[in-house]
Amino acid sequence: MIGAVFTEDGKMLSDITVPTGMPEDTMPALLSFFSKYTISAIGVSSFGPLQLTKGSPEYGTITSTPKPGWKNYPLGRTLGDTLHAPFAVETDVGGALIAEINEGAGRGCDTCVYATIGTGIGSAFIDRGKLTGTLRHATMGHIIVKPHPRDPFPDGFCSFHKGCLEGLASGKSMQTRWGMTVRDLPGSHISWEIESYYLAQFCVSLILGYMPERIILGGGVMKHPDLLPMIRQKVQVMLGEYLNLPEVHDDIDRYIVRAELEGKNGILGAFYIAKQILNKRGVYNE
Amino acid sequence: MIGAVFTEDGKMLSDITVPTGMPEDTMPALLSFFSKYTISAIGVSSFGPLQLTKGSPEYGTITSTPKPGWKNYPLGRTLGDTLHAPFAVETDVGGALIAEINEGAGRGCDTCVYATIGTGIGSAFIDRGKLTGTLRHATMGHIIVKPHPRDPFPDGFCSFHKGCLEGLASGKSMQTRWGMTVRDLPGSHISWEIESYYLAQFCVSLILGYMPERIILGGGVMKHPDLLPMIRQKVQVMLGEYLNLPEVHDDIDRYIVRAELEGKNGILGAFYIAKQILNKRGVYNE
Repeated sequence: MIGAVFTEDGKMLSDITVPTGMPEDTMPALLSFFSKYTISAIGVSSFGPLQLTKGSPEYGTITSTPKPGWKNYPLGRTLGDTLHAPFAVETDVGGALIAEINEGAGRGCDTCVYATIGTGIGSAFIDRGKLTGTLRHATMGHIIVKPHPRDPFPDGFCSFHKGCLEGLASGKSMQTRWGMTVRDLPGSHISWEIESYYLAQFCVSLILGYMPERIILGGGVMKHPDLLPMIRQKVQVMLGEYLNLPEVHDDIDRYIVRAELEGKNGILGAFYIAKQILNKRGVYNE
Repeated sequence: MIGAVFTEDGKMLSDITVPTGMPEDTMPALLSFFSKYTISAIGVSSFGPLQLTKGSPEYGTITSTPKPGWKNYPLGRTLGDTLHAPFAVETDVGGALIAEINEGAGRGCDTCVYATIGTGIGSAFIDRGKLTGTLRHATMGHIIVKPHPRDPFPDGFCSFHKGCLEGLASGKSMQTRWGMTVRDLPGSHISWEIESYYLAQFCVSLILGYMPERIILGGGVMKHPDLLPMIRQKVQVMLGEYLNLPEVHDDIDRYIVRAELEGKNGILGAFYIAKQILNKRGVYNE
């Protein structure tokens, strides 16, 4: 877990990295770091699943995680009560999108999708300044997709779903299917053809479902240099002339783009989440 | 086309039905009907595609329809200029959702999906009072789905996409595939197994992508009495224990529900769209 203290105008004063052990080890280290400062607002960008219903007494609690000790841990409230400051909590994917829209690849967008294709697959959507999702955080990471005809494991490897996106296209599923890491798969390998086919389907669903101004793709799998161009090309083919979106057909390199803040979108997201509390301009989720 | 005049509190004073011929025949009939009244606001719930960018000079224009004469027809502006009143335009699916959320199956919801499974398939999503979609109206009608193993035509019948939902599960595609209308297909026919499989996938994508408080299904195909229970059951199986949503696992009969205003959601939607102009309370899209 990374903690950082910022001034309100975004200057980082100090930061700390604490391994995510059991809460009784991790939290005191974080809290003693923060307690040296007078904190006016706390922003949290966390792994989930999270209880994010505003007004709920469990708001900001981690729910059903398999991480030992963190199940039902009241992360937001513990920080808020100890540091005597208001707190706001989002998922890590939502936090990454908030960071990208404020100072990364989503600058200037009123509606924007961020999707991460790493060990797992997640997405977040901001519509007119607010993250979408009432029952839970909205994410298309587990939508069911059409299998590629040359995929040797068309059911995929998700423990919850047969044939969902995460089970077919996450970095973990690629490694399970091909027996090597994403980094080791050569560019000419059939895996990239299959991977781009699934991620193009994903982008088509993101476009149709959200009609956003931009789609930002991040995560370790996207580091493969040929993947993004392959996805863009397949999205154009799959959507075809339906809708005739000029953003897709004439300007896709500026429509489906690479994340710009990878490695720091967690801490920057948390900063902007905290800033929303102090400053209800721009992107916030209340 | 149906026109109606309402009082601000929702009493219908009179209405007219005019066949959708060429605009030069249809519009004068509508306009002369309306011109007998002093109109304070105009709401339009129309077939699309529509230009719906607020502030655009083409706002409220029908764009690329195959209907003769209506391509690029400025429907909103023609009504507004002739009747000297402010106008607001939404798609028919968006209008139906606005009606359902105001006085139908979506009452009390802050976030709600409406999907129509008829000749075609469309959907609309209201998030905290506003319809979603920036480039265009957001609709998951053409998302790509996983083919049913017993579907004899797994590519479907959409002229734009191979294997999209509308091409596989619309009333038109069912009729093309089975050679009889939805009304004539017996309840024991394999078609309903296949249809519910596709529509359950659709609902899973709607849930994941929007995390709405409720999903409302309407349209002619949904009239088959066994279909909705089959969809509900398959949604529970397909989502599995992922997310553990109590709305899906414990209360699905109140979560995925039938539309209540079919046959009148067009005119009621138009009324509520007009009312948004006069009365910026409740559901509106500005």
